[in-house]
Amino acid sequence: MLEIEYDGTDFNGWQIQPKGRTVEKEIMKAIKKIAKHEVKIFGAGRTDAKVHAKAQTANFKTESKIPIDRLPKAMNGLLPKDVSIVRAFEMPKNFNARYHAIGKTYSYHIYNSRIRSALLSRHSYYYPVTLDIELMRAATQFLIGGHDFKSFMSANSNIKNTVRIINSINICKRDKSIYLTFEGNGFLYNMVRIMVGTLLEVGRKKTTPEYMKYILESKNRVYAGCTAPPQGLFLEKVIYP
Amino acid sequence: MLEIEYDGTDFNGWQIQPKGRTVEKEIMKAIKKIAKHEVKIFGAGRTDAKVHAKAQTANFKTESKIPIDRLPKAMNGLLPKDVSIVRAFEMPKNFNARYHAIGKTYSYHIYNSRIRSALLSRHSYYYPVTLDIELMRAATQFLIGGHDFKSFMSANSNIKNTVRIINSINICKRDKSIYLTFEGNGFLYNMVRIMVGTLLEVGRKKTTPEYMKYILESKNRVYAGCTAPPQGLFLEKVIYP
Repeated sequence: MLEIEYDGTDFNGWQIQPKGRTVEKEIMKAIKKIAKHEVKIFGAGRTDAKVHAKAQTANFKTESKIPIDRLPKAMNGLLPKDVSIVRAFEMPKNFNARYHAIGKTYSYHIYNSRIRSALLSRHSYYYPVTLDIELMRAATQFLIGGHDFKSFMSANSNIKNTVRIINSINICKRDKSIYLTFEGNGFLYNMVRIMVGTLLEVGRKKTTPEYMKYILESKNRVYAGCTAPPQGLFLEKVIYP
Repeated sequence: MLEIEYDGTDFNGWQIQPKGRTVEKEIMKAIKKIAKHEVKIFGAGRTDAKVHAKAQTANFKTESKIPIDRLPKAMNGLLPKDVSIVRAFEMPKNFNARYHAIGKTYSYHIYNSRIRSALLSRHSYYYPVTLDIELMRAATQFLIGGHDFKSFMSANSNIKNTVRIINSINICKRDKSIYLTFEGNGFLYNMVRIMVGTLLEVGRKKTTPEYMKYILESKNRVYAGCTAPPQGLFLEKVIYP
């Protein structure tokens, strides 16, 4: 199992696609050079274009004899600067990074200033409207716990079981930056970004914290807020038993 | 006077050059569109390729009637994402951002980890060797005050007065990041990067803190350490009376 950090800005997301750079493809190429055979990679989460990861996980099988503690440095020597292997672990033979994950943590960085920041432009969402953090915190209370999050799923997705459990949502403000952290047993397609977009509408008083209840009950994407843009989103951690 | 933030990664430095993108050129183009006439720009410091700025300053003269408090947003609408105008001020007619500056603050970010970081690759120097921060702090004591910093100036520079005053050097460690902050009345060409490179040799015990004295006295570039790479350097602030 690899723990992978990447700057998503110049990637067309995690998953291999016919067009554009993808993180999975870069990793596959690096492993192939070291292991000297083709590998199939199983990533824990398929992040979208421009979404970042501090510790995405993925697994692959190999008979290669390279010591596991040498693997990160060996792979980093072959990988482009915007991907790095942070750690590597030997796992039981049947391990699957996706199916054995019991939870994930995502964070979202809002740059809440009247003027945009050049240095943070790749890693945050510039949002120049005044926000009431306390109202946003109040709204998160309605999202915590087990709920059918269908309203917070991209309309393009057609997954059937849309019930997920959110363990915690933290909002912290430091200077002009607001960091939202979501921990849950899993997230639907675009779920974090739609939650952020909806919490921003609460923060700017376009809607109330209590309205979250109504959005959840409606089970209809149109009642939630906009999908916040990808560059503010970080897959922080994949949780295993 | 403009206060300018930029991500230096994709720039060939501040100053207009025959080849490559430069920050000065981007700013000149944006002002021209707003003021409807050509302008000459005077920047406080000429940062090198890949060096960043949080608040570089520059001045220009115009008869344009655009309100000063609208200028940052108007310019940011025209500038690329990696440059932003943070603030703008009306100044006395004879003001010059470079000649009226009485000091500058630079910071340098070292990512001191065994494994490189993809997310920090544009904004830090990845340095995987163990460092003794206390030795580095001891070494800074010899650099503080007024000295002839000729040994800490790029050999390509032929400036005559190489005496500068350093008011403070702070070193702070947070997780795997080490931040060095230098405040002084002015800095010679590559001076901060050469001081960082030399302090790193102290930190890794290749040389001693006391050796700083000898380097200063030698007035010879060859005795100081390597020039640390540009991507870790940030022009933090230009100081005026």
